[in-house]
Amino acid sequence: MATTTDFKTWAAAQQQRIETQLQAVLPGADVAPQRLHEAMRYAALGGGKRVRPLLALAAGEVTGADESRAAIAGAAVELIHAYSLVHDDLPCMDDDVLRRGKPTCHVEFDEATALLVGDALQSLAFQLISEFRLANDAAVQLEMVKLLALATGSRGMAGGQAIDLAAVGVDLSLPELEFMHIHKTGALIRAATLLGAHCGNALDAPALAKLDHFAKCVGLAFQVVDDLLDTEATTATLGKTAGKDAKDNKPTYVSVLGVAESRKLAAQLREDALAALEVFGGRAHRLRELADFIVLRKF
Amino acid sequence: MATTTDFKTWAAAQQQRIETQLQAVLPGADVAPQRLHEAMRYAALGGGKRVRPLLALAAGEVTGADESRAAIAGAAVELIHAYSLVHDDLPCMDDDVLRRGKPTCHVEFDEATALLVGDALQSLAFQLISEFRLANDAAVQLEMVKLLALATGSRGMAGGQAIDLAAVGVDLSLPELEFMHIHKTGALIRAATLLGAHCGNALDAPALAKLDHFAKCVGLAFQVVDDLLDTEATTATLGKTAGKDAKDNKPTYVSVLGVAESRKLAAQLREDALAALEVFGGRAHRLRELADFIVLRKF
Repeated sequence: MATTTDFKTWAAAQQQRIETQLQAVLPGADVAPQRLHEAMRYAALGGGKRVRPLLALAAGEVTGADESRAAIAGAAVELIHAYSLVHDDLPCMDDDVLRRGKPTCHVEFDEATALLVGDALQSLAFQLISEFRLANDAAVQLEMVKLLALATGSRGMAGGQAIDLAAVGVDLSLPELEFMHIHKTGALIRAATLLGAHCGNALDAPALAKLDHFAKCVGLAFQVVDDLLDTEATTATLGKTAGKDAKDNKPTYVSVLGVAESRKLAAQLREDALAALEVFGGRAHRLRELADFIVLRKF
Repeated sequence: MATTTDFKTWAAAQQQRIETQLQAVLPGADVAPQRLHEAMRYAALGGGKRVRPLLALAAGEVTGADESRAAIAGAAVELIHAYSLVHDDLPCMDDDVLRRGKPTCHVEFDEATALLVGDALQSLAFQLISEFRLANDAAVQLEMVKLLALATGSRGMAGGQAIDLAAVGVDLSLPELEFMHIHKTGALIRAATLLGAHCGNALDAPALAKLDHFAKCVGLAFQVVDDLLDTEATTATLGKTAGKDAKDNKPTYVSVLGVAESRKLAAQLREDALAALEVFGGRAHRLRELADFIVLRKF
């Protein structure tokens, strides 16, 4: 897709591409076990901003990746994200009833099914990242599997959830809060960006480090903005329960820094993210637009 | 290890090898997030018959695989198995309090931690299957990742769990019961066997089909024997709650066929399994011993 297309048009087309990709890889609701497959489709389809796949596609533009490859890598990360939402919403975790404007998976189905939905979506992500040719070199693609596994597991996203659990009712310092979010949301955002880039021509180590730094800043900015929106927006706008973190006594950027400082931090992270992209010139056009979208979004 | 070693000695040495492998790949309990890592080690270390890794190692002998490779493939499958036990024991699933003679993970820790333990053990399995060189050809190893993902997901083990959930209080026919177990326990036992074989020299399609048939029969025999033991053994011998299936009103081979017919079926499956190995001659020595171990075990 030519980079002259405006961002909104590009994003809408790519979100549709990801939806089609997920539709195709998720087993049909008529395939046994039907209820599980129906619930997996309920949890993964038809919602969300698809920020992670968009990052994969935009990073793929930096390395000249085939769009269909970057879309698959992005869809795999999105399946991990979808699984994490289903498990996070369970009664033993955040106990939430609303997600993307719909009842959460365990409310619409039942807890046992929601547990299996998350489990099976994770497996499906690893199926997707391994079954199509995504890199010219199979050894590079094995590295991509490992990268996704590390970002998903106990030293990545799942570890971030564990830190989050332990932080309820605790006063965290800014570095502690940052450590939590670098794992909880940051790991998957970085993975999406790097996986998209790996679908194309190899970057040298300094360039890869720049791209990773961009993704790290964007991941933190994403969380700061999430916390601001959680304070300021309404449940209807968010499609999930607003004000939940404060109610649950969870530390957030707003509770640690206040609203004004949080806004400043988001702006600074955006600056840092954009600066890291300088080496890539015009090829990073979509990544720049995405950074703006993430920081300036209202939902 | 020479095949002249008796089975018990071989199995004990290999179980120790797997324990060491798992010890090494599981993050230390001193690595953040500590509680999650402690719980992951609690769930995955120091217990179990390690049937799946033993199958991987024995199948690796058929194809001349490097033992250290087959051990890694087997350990990855064991991590998936360990995750499934933690999630199956949760209150929303089987709600069990005893596993391998110890309190289940959610009893020893808490439900949220047990949920994350299962999630992170699954990710770790995919890390393990991708991070070491296990096949001479990286493209073959990508196939191995896909094979593990399929065996783990909604058309494999997780799907079998969903069928199991739907079967509570239902009269299943023998084919329906078999369909459930081919997914619930069979998928992972087949994956372990095939992954072990893929670590060595390539088998042609007919030989691979024979090995798969062996694993399918062994997987079913494993379940039939499990059901017999659940009826006949005591909680102390099993290290898990005995008589649980009958209490939970779950269909089993014993409830569908009765004890005598179940014993006959196990013996027949053993015969079928052994017959499938004929093409492999002496190289399948350990697989034969394992089939016997699985059918004749008392725990």
